[in-house]
Amino acid sequence: MAKPLAVSLGDPAGIGPELLATAWAAREVHHLPPFFAVGGAGLLAAAAARRGLDVPIRHVADPAEAGTAFAEALPVLGDDDGPYDPGQPSRQGAILALASLTRAAQLAVSGEAGGLVTGPIAKSRLAEVGFTHPGQTEFVAAACGVSAGNAVMMLAGPSLRTVPLTVHVALAQVPGLVTRELIERKARIVAAALRRDFGLAHPRLAIAALNPHAGEDGRMGEEDRAIIAPAIAALREAGIDASGPHPADALFAPHNRASFDAALCMYHDQALIPLKALDFDSGVNITLGLPIVRTSADHGTAFAIAGKAEAHPGATIAAIRMAGDCAGRRELAA
Amino acid sequence: MAKPLAVSLGDPAGIGPELLATAWAAREVHHLPPFFAVGGAGLLAAAAARRGLDVPIRHVADPAEAGTAFAEALPVLGDDDGPYDPGQPSRQGAILALASLTRAAQLAVSGEAGGLVTGPIAKSRLAEVGFTHPGQTEFVAAACGVSAGNAVMMLAGPSLRTVPLTVHVALAQVPGLVTRELIERKARIVAAALRRDFGLAHPRLAIAALNPHAGEDGRMGEEDRAIIAPAIAALREAGIDASGPHPADALFAPHNRASFDAALCMYHDQALIPLKALDFDSGVNITLGLPIVRTSADHGTAFAIAGKAEAHPGATIAAIRMAGDCAGRRELAA
Repeated sequence: MAKPLAVSLGDPAGIGPELLATAWAAREVHHLPPFFAVGGAGLLAAAAARRGLDVPIRHVADPAEAGTAFAEALPVLGDDDGPYDPGQPSRQGAILALASLTRAAQLAVSGEAGGLVTGPIAKSRLAEVGFTHPGQTEFVAAACGVSAGNAVMMLAGPSLRTVPLTVHVALAQVPGLVTRELIERKARIVAAALRRDFGLAHPRLAIAALNPHAGEDGRMGEEDRAIIAPAIAALREAGIDASGPHPADALFAPHNRASFDAALCMYHDQALIPLKALDFDSGVNITLGLPIVRTSADHGTAFAIAGKAEAHPGATIAAIRMAGDCAGRRELAA
Repeated sequence: MAKPLAVSLGDPAGIGPELLATAWAAREVHHLPPFFAVGGAGLLAAAAARRGLDVPIRHVADPAEAGTAFAEALPVLGDDDGPYDPGQPSRQGAILALASLTRAAQLAVSGEAGGLVTGPIAKSRLAEVGFTHPGQTEFVAAACGVSAGNAVMMLAGPSLRTVPLTVHVALAQVPGLVTRELIERKARIVAAALRRDFGLAHPRLAIAALNPHAGEDGRMGEEDRAIIAPAIAALREAGIDASGPHPADALFAPHNRASFDAALCMYHDQALIPLKALDFDSGVNITLGLPIVRTSADHGTAFAIAGKAEAHPGATIAAIRMAGDCAGRRELAA
């Protein structure tokens, strides 16, 4: 049997715990692989109750026991627990979130857990209690001994997969950051991950243009023909099925979506606008290029609706399922 | 009865003529308002035949006669005609396209036609035969005596309406072009058009942020709080229901789309990615701020599929219907 996935709680004042409990309650209808929460037994029970769900909690000593317990109860590993005060983030809650994330990552890195699914955190809150990374992706990369530049964020939904080449930078900085080296390096990581984790023998990568109409032969920007096109040529030379630079506006139209397995986009909104427009309630954030499988729901803590039974569990369910699928493929190949 | 719409042919080697004939054939099922083609009787008949459609052509002397003829035949005004050689653009075809556009615009400006629907042209081809404008929008604005800067392009589909603040410029130039003056001027034009042409008494405008996460208090770019937010405050001060700056990635998610009537986006792809992802086959380009109603299908000539009966008529049908709806509202208000 596949090893259970370790799931971190996220901020206990956010929607993470209630969605984790909701996912367990929906484990059969969604064919979810076994998973366990790291800490938070009391607050998970309270969060489940607030959603009107009957979720028995089972303390387990190790991931293997979680695999056995999963059918009957939501397994919880570790005794850390905290207040359940939805919508009211606190220092105590941030400490619990960081402890849960740290332990869950360790269990995945050590191989005791089959993979890692992280709950949503509030970065500024965690920073106040000693978290020094820009986000969870960088934290997990460091836990794996991988440089942050080689941990690649992919957003994946039922309709499409996108990868932002540049992420949390001002739009004005984007053109200067688009380099051949970066495109080639990230495209290689994406192609390798689509083969290994998604079972695509010949992954097709669409590379988006930076400028409207792909620059129209330089009339609207030089980057597409001077930087992106040569990078694509080099990738093709290396046997990677990369195409483009594609005008980004039409790239996500239905007939075009069918022509690629993932789109490498030049900046944050170019990648996330189509994903959230099409797959808002089921978008998964998956980190490619790591020795472990790591996914998360593509949404934040949503403090404003926490505890109100309004948060949609689709993305959490999809994140757990995708982690299980990817981990299963790695196990088969090992 | 409402005055018939003038429809220009577009490039005769593109998909414009066949879609125009197809729209006429679908006039009843789609409740299309009366329209007439300007020129191209012979090539329209040939284009209809290539799509297997029975489209009788009727030469008419003026728009009023077109209104009467429309139920029984596709009315054509004017004797200009040209070769029908789909996929093979020619100088002769470009001359016909320009003549059709020029005459159709005149008929709308003079008030003889109820509005203008333009077929897709190849700008570079038309430039070779004397067309001096960057695109049809600027041509039509000039025909109306409106400066190009006050003719605002809106993309409209069943799912959403978007307006790009900046259009055909390199992405690197965008941040420098985002000014308070431009945002306020275009937002006012959009709000006025949503009232007059779309019958929305209290139009809600969502203004997109330029930077990811709306800049996160300046950590990822200053423009959102230094330029866009003050412009929104000024618009609200002036009684316009403008909101934002909204992080663009989530702005087009289903629940957010329901919260605005149009989104003012900062650049081309920010506006067109969600529109084409959601409404690819039915997107309409409508020019706001003109004394006439002008729409077009939001696609190009598609020479590669012209004459193959593959082109989807949805956007042409939607463009004709929207022009008729908007013209009807203006007529009622007059």
